[in-house]
Amino acid sequence: MIALFTDFGLEGPYTGQMQAVLHREAPGVPVVGLFSDLPPFDPQGAAYLLAAYAGEFPLDTVFLCVVDPGVGGPRAASVLRADGRWYVGPDNGLLAIAARRAGHRRWWDVSWRPARLSASFHGRDLFAPVAARLARGEPPPGDCVAAEERLRADWPNDLSRIVYVDRFGNAVTGLRAAVLGPGVILEAGGRRLGRARTFSDVAPGEAFWYENANGLAEIAVNTGRADHTLGIAPGDSIHVAAGGR
Amino acid sequence: MIALFTDFGLEGPYTGQMQAVLHREAPGVPVVGLFSDLPPFDPQGAAYLLAAYAGEFPLDTVFLCVVDPGVGGPRAASVLRADGRWYVGPDNGLLAIAARRAGHRRWWDVSWRPARLSASFHGRDLFAPVAARLARGEPPPGDCVAAEERLRADWPNDLSRIVYVDRFGNAVTGLRAAVLGPGVILEAGGRRLGRARTFSDVAPGEAFWYENANGLAEIAVNTGRADHTLGIAPGDSIHVAAGGR
Amino acid sequence: MIALFTDFGLEGPYTGQMQAVLHREAPGVPVVGLFSDLPPFDPQGAAYLLAAYAGEFPLDTVFLCVVDPGVGGPRAASVLRADGRWYVGPDNGLLAIAARRAGHRRWWDVSWRPARLSASFHGRDLFAPVAARLARGEPPPGDCVAAEERLRADWPNDLSRIVYVDRFGNAVTGLRAAVLGPGVILEAGGRRLGRARTFSDVAPGEAFWYENANGLAEIAVNTGRADHTLGIAPGDSIHVAAGGR
Repeated sequence: MIALFTDFGLEGPYTGQMQAVLHREAPGVPVVGLFSDLPPFDPQGAAYLLAAYAGEFPLDTVFLCVVDPGVGGPRAASVLRADGRWYVGPDNGLLAIAARRAGHRRWWDVSWRPARLSASFHGRDLFAPVAARLARGEPPPGDCVAAEERLRADWPNDLSRIVYVDRFGNAVTGLRAAVLGPGVILEAGGRRLGRARTFSDVAPGEAFWYENANGLAEIAVNTGRADHTLGIAPGDSIHVAAGGR
Repeated sequence: MIALFTDFGLEGPYTGQMQAVLHREAPGVPVVGLFSDLPPFDPQGAAYLLAAYAGEFPLDTVFLCVVDPGVGGPRAASVLRADGRWYVGPDNGLLAIAARRAGHRRWWDVSWRPARLSASFHGRDLFAPVAARLARGEPPPGDCVAAEERLRADWPNDLSRIVYVDRFGNAVTGLRAAVLGPGVILEAGGRRLGRARTFSDVAPGEAFWYENANGLAEIAVNTGRADHTLGIAPGDSIHVAAGGR
Repeated sequence: MIALFTDFGLEGPYTGQMQAVLHREAPGVPVVGLFSDLPPFDPQGAAYLLAAYAGEFPLDTVFLCVVDPGVGGPRAASVLRADGRWYVGPDNGLLAIAARRAGHRRWWDVSWRPARLSASFHGRDLFAPVAARLARGEPPPGDCVAAEERLRADWPNDLSRIVYVDRFGNAVTGLRAAVLGPGVILEAGGRRLGRARTFSDVAPGEAFWYENANGLAEIAVNTGRADHTLGIAPGDSIHVAAGGR
């Protein structure tokens, strides 16, 4: 299976052209979109999402990852093998957190280049053909490298800001709920938010945070929109406050 | 075939994770999105859409239906077999109208639970595995129940409000055009609207209603947006007025 | 492969119903969305996009093309074979530029009609079944016609206006970059824009134009939104100004 993890959108011309390459180069391999609307220009925030969501996918899934504001510039292209799954993407930190949390990892530099490489769409021209190759069971087209600097030691273990807002207005953070205590208070948009199990455990209209289905702390409002209610957006900082148990 | 009928959106993380489960559990079965942008928190409105749109799909299609504001609470999970098609979803009325209009129907309570059931994402953890099982030709994992209360006798035969606005600004109602006469006037946004056959039968910019391609009364403006022109939105009531023939 | 080229959106009920027809009538044929969010009511602008983007797809790809404000009216339905690819769509100019730029082309009138043809959704009822038939390797269901008037000689070789704005705010024009010189200045939103190779070649926040990955001149801002920065939208004219080399 190939899972798309991009900021390309589904409706415009980018994802479809990538899918056409994948169907041609890896016929019969299912392609699903994990995220296609990641916030543009934010590989760091996306890195914490990727690490949290990839574990739901079967072993040997190939994650085709593109949040790539530096496309056409000097940044390298990476392949990562981490705990039995493949990741392909730009070397801008996007794969760093998935790599860092893995028990076993290996990195490759992608030295292969297509006959025609556009300056602005490496998703189609470079990353998709490499992903198809991995999905066919072939080795990464490049050299295995040590590359521990790709783990981005300057980035925290968990990221205390909003990294994604979904279509319901729920605000996903880069914080794993498991590292926060049950009594922790999150502060966002000037409000102190307690933890609940899920939506139906609080009153309609009430704001809270909870462990979402992929293990991240998520800020929500029961039958409402947290983004509008609290005035919050991707990139906003979240403050973690001690709370009574 | 599995048809998705949800309010999850396609671009965020929900539909893709469901698709990954479906591809793993029912390999080779095509998955299409019938609606992925249903208005959140409105299982009633969605129920009238499902009844109108399901008939276009082949027999044995499995509809994976999730508009589920009560997820994580006590509501049950249902399987419905109605006129040769399968439906899986929460027991909140979402399947009621498709069931009520069927000549033959059977209900099952879903007693099966996965090894890990998140509090907020039963679409991935519960409904998708059940849908995959039905698509593989296996029986529903639970008991067949009488459950006539699931037909929601308190809901009308047709729903005189707007249940969906499409990307062109057309407003779909819960009213079947066949039960309205050809001379019926619909009142919406303070305007009286006559019936036309289709867009090109009225002048550009003119508002009207017509029988859409799935049999529902739909309010539209030729080469314009009905939602903006008339100031209407999902949930707004529609008044059915007698009209001269 | 079947490539969708429509203004239907992916999330609402239109694309999914078309896909259901395609899966039923052409089982196993991959379906990808090239564009699903074309600007409504603008077959001319879409025609220049189709001509630019189709060449990325394999030979024998079937393009299912629907931007069809005249649906239900007297316009004919066309099949085009151009340089080894198939195109199906309304006869409103949508296929004209792809045809005009082809070395070899043939046109057919679609005389076949389904048992039930809705007044408003020929994408599902007429064009999708014809596309499926072509994808199965069958001939077009109608007569081969001369139809040179379908080349729309009244339309220019290149279209100097904005034909699409993507989710990043980049504005795609109907102008091929190859027919513009390297020193050409484009004027849009009252600003004069020079040419660059790609985003990372200009300063953050700077507006420019470049040859996009499909050969069209596209107006962009590095790590910003050109549509907001310049106040431009689909339909806006672009002025081509001589520039020093």
